[in-house]
Amino acid sequence: MSRSGRAAEPALPAAPGASQEEIRRQNLGAVLRYVHVHGPTSRAELTGRLGLNRSTIGALALDLTTAGLVTEEAEAPTAARRAGRPSLVVSPRSAGVYAHALSIEADLLRAARIGLGGRILDLREIRRPPGMPVLDAVVPLAALLRDMHRSVPGDALLVGGAAAVADTSRDGAGRIRIGAADEKLADALRAELPAGPGFVTGDLADIAALAEHLRGVAAGVNDLVYLHGDLGVSAGIITGGRLVTGHRGHSGKVGHMVVNPDGLPCGCGSRGCWETEIGEAALLRHAGRAAGEPGAASEVVRAAVGGDPTAGSAVREVADWLGFGVANLVNVVNPDLVVFGGSLREVYAAGAGVVRRRLDGIALPASREHVQLRAATLGRDAALIGAAELAFDQLLADPLNAGVAG
Amino acid sequence: MSRSGRAAEPALPAAPGASQEEIRRQNLGAVLRYVHVHGPTSRAELTGRLGLNRSTIGALALDLTTAGLVTEEAEAPTAARRAGRPSLVVSPRSAGVYAHALSIEADLLRAARIGLGGRILDLREIRRPPGMPVLDAVVPLAALLRDMHRSVPGDALLVGGAAAVADTSRDGAGRIRIGAADEKLADALRAELPAGPGFVTGDLADIAALAEHLRGVAAGVNDLVYLHGDLGVSAGIITGGRLVTGHRGHSGKVGHMVVNPDGLPCGCGSRGCWETEIGEAALLRHAGRAAGEPGAASEVVRAAVGGDPTAGSAVREVADWLGFGVANLVNVVNPDLVVFGGSLREVYAAGAGVVRRRLDGIALPASREHVQLRAATLGRDAALIGAAELAFDQLLADPLNAGVAG
Repeated sequence: MSRSGRAAEPALPAAPGASQEEIRRQNLGAVLRYVHVHGPTSRAELTGRLGLNRSTIGALALDLTTAGLVTEEAEAPTAARRAGRPSLVVSPRSAGVYAHALSIEADLLRAARIGLGGRILDLREIRRPPGMPVLDAVVPLAALLRDMHRSVPGDALLVGGAAAVADTSRDGAGRIRIGAADEKLADALRAELPAGPGFVTGDLADIAALAEHLRGVAAGVNDLVYLHGDLGVSAGIITGGRLVTGHRGHSGKVGHMVVNPDGLPCGCGSRGCWETEIGEAALLRHAGRAAGEPGAASEVVRAAVGGDPTAGSAVREVADWLGFGVANLVNVVNPDLVVFGGSLREVYAAGAGVVRRRLDGIALPASREHVQLRAATLGRDAALIGAAELAFDQLLADPLNAGVAG
Repeated sequence: MSRSGRAAEPALPAAPGASQEEIRRQNLGAVLRYVHVHGPTSRAELTGRLGLNRSTIGALALDLTTAGLVTEEAEAPTAARRAGRPSLVVSPRSAGVYAHALSIEADLLRAARIGLGGRILDLREIRRPPGMPVLDAVVPLAALLRDMHRSVPGDALLVGGAAAVADTSRDGAGRIRIGAADEKLADALRAELPAGPGFVTGDLADIAALAEHLRGVAAGVNDLVYLHGDLGVSAGIITGGRLVTGHRGHSGKVGHMVVNPDGLPCGCGSRGCWETEIGEAALLRHAGRAAGEPGAASEVVRAAVGGDPTAGSAVREVADWLGFGVANLVNVVNPDLVVFGGSLREVYAAGAGVVRRRLDGIALPASREHVQLRAATLGRDAALIGAAELAFDQLLADPLNAGVAG
């Protein structure tokens, strides 16, 4: 996955010798991207935001309307509006232009149709049984997509698909299994869905980070660390508005930072990795509960919030280690914002004070003073919304030459 | 510091509605940047590399020649060259177009004039006494620049200046002092050097990373971590070809990742920070030598290489902790390359096997298998060369409207 997370800015790079045709394609993409991210927008506002003149915006909007990607209608009259001709409002055609979004999570397989503008049009999910390899998820996910396909209007445009794959899964005995992604997944999805355009795949934490950056709590923030907890812990790191993918897309394996050299053995073969202290298993261990049941960790957090002292102590212990690793990341990355998603959302919500105290106790003042900590806002849908963004990417780069009917 | 480290690519972002004048400015910048980074280049090669046609390249080269930024001369005839008119070779006018580059290091103040193309034209240095605040370095550095100024040709163009500031310094007793930069530094430099254009300042590790990325061991590598050791340890992190600056330019404080919660107190107020295990003081401690003398750490490494068993054991201990923190960074950032600079260059060179073994022992296979470890190649000059790049930035963005004579 190599795309930029910077979707809200109109300017795309142009080669020095860009032709008129390339400039037009970029301008079409800029207009479509703007309404995709910001929703219905008047031509007048687009003119101002994109730095293009009025007649250019009009021509671009007409092209996009003709292509069936947006609709235009007169702005509703308001008392505040000045005299003169009302500006037409450009809206993304959400119901008619959509992407396939999948997530392969530790305990769940989810499939959605997501419309231009980021609207979830349809969503199905089934349980992922322990021990199911990623590739075995292809057939049931394809079946979910086919099932949804029955209600798609005949003239709808499918622009592509993407799958977000969690970094960890359960083995047959319910224990954590690491590095659960599979390079053959994209090919397998394409083979199973012959009518669809190319599927892309990516790391779930990275993709959820993009979603929170574009449409969630991190909108407008260009330097952030999104922490995703499930069985393990991964991060999506965005700096200068761009996702840090790393050389081979393996960045953000923060769960395997060693924070406690004398700690417990980790499934990765090392010892004292961060996720041995803040993962689901750590929470259950401190609470004296059995590991392996989906939902058990949430139950501990609920008990802690409800006043159960053992559960409360378990949450505080995990929150303390959470703050410890966050301090390391804050020192290394200097983000403006740290977002807690997945199962860490609940832990953070219940132990925010503990996290902050540990962070303040050990991170450098210059880095910690301005950093904000927040719970994710898109919740469980972040991965699907982010996957749809990957799928929309080609359309937004070249609006008139992407997608297939159906 | 917010510039991109991606200097070798011709394409600059153009707003969708870029004017002819803007396109021309970008193209001028692309040609100048190319010869600045790659050295003398024929018009024919520029045509191919920048995707512009031959007559456009000719016109741009002529404009740059007229502005005194490049020279053009006929390519030397070679047997291999095909028949036809020889292509003119465009060269940066290194001696006539230059930047002021400064570095404020723990024990040293350095000033250089660096010509377009990255050539060091002149360089002076003096000792920085323990306890000297960053702001007090302004007057002696300005004196060094004035001293050099006497030998500058009258028609030379000064395009700007930049200072690289180390993250740590010594207090009056020779002990490590953290967060040694000063926000007022740039203003103080501008005030002391009224004839020069705006000075910019940045973190020394970030700036050295840019230099190694542009002209050193990391040329052509887009995902790298540059580790800089002096009294402390900082990193310059480049991902996707761009420097990670963080929200307020404080990224890369990797020396304060806590790697050993039961470790020694750190000057930052925390405990067990990475630099307590791999900094200069750690090496001296393990070698049983007194801290505080500049050059003492290098002496330990030399003794280790020479066969001294105590020094050898000290280097191995530090190298092991070096590999430990590198593993964390490799898991988080997934770089293609880790570069060891400053005093860590020597430690790495003497203990490379130990570093690699620890890295392989604890980093995730997917991240560690492809990562290369290398000693920095620009040596002590990396910070000055990188600072000059910051100073050249404005010129390269708008070649015909930057700089002042003298």
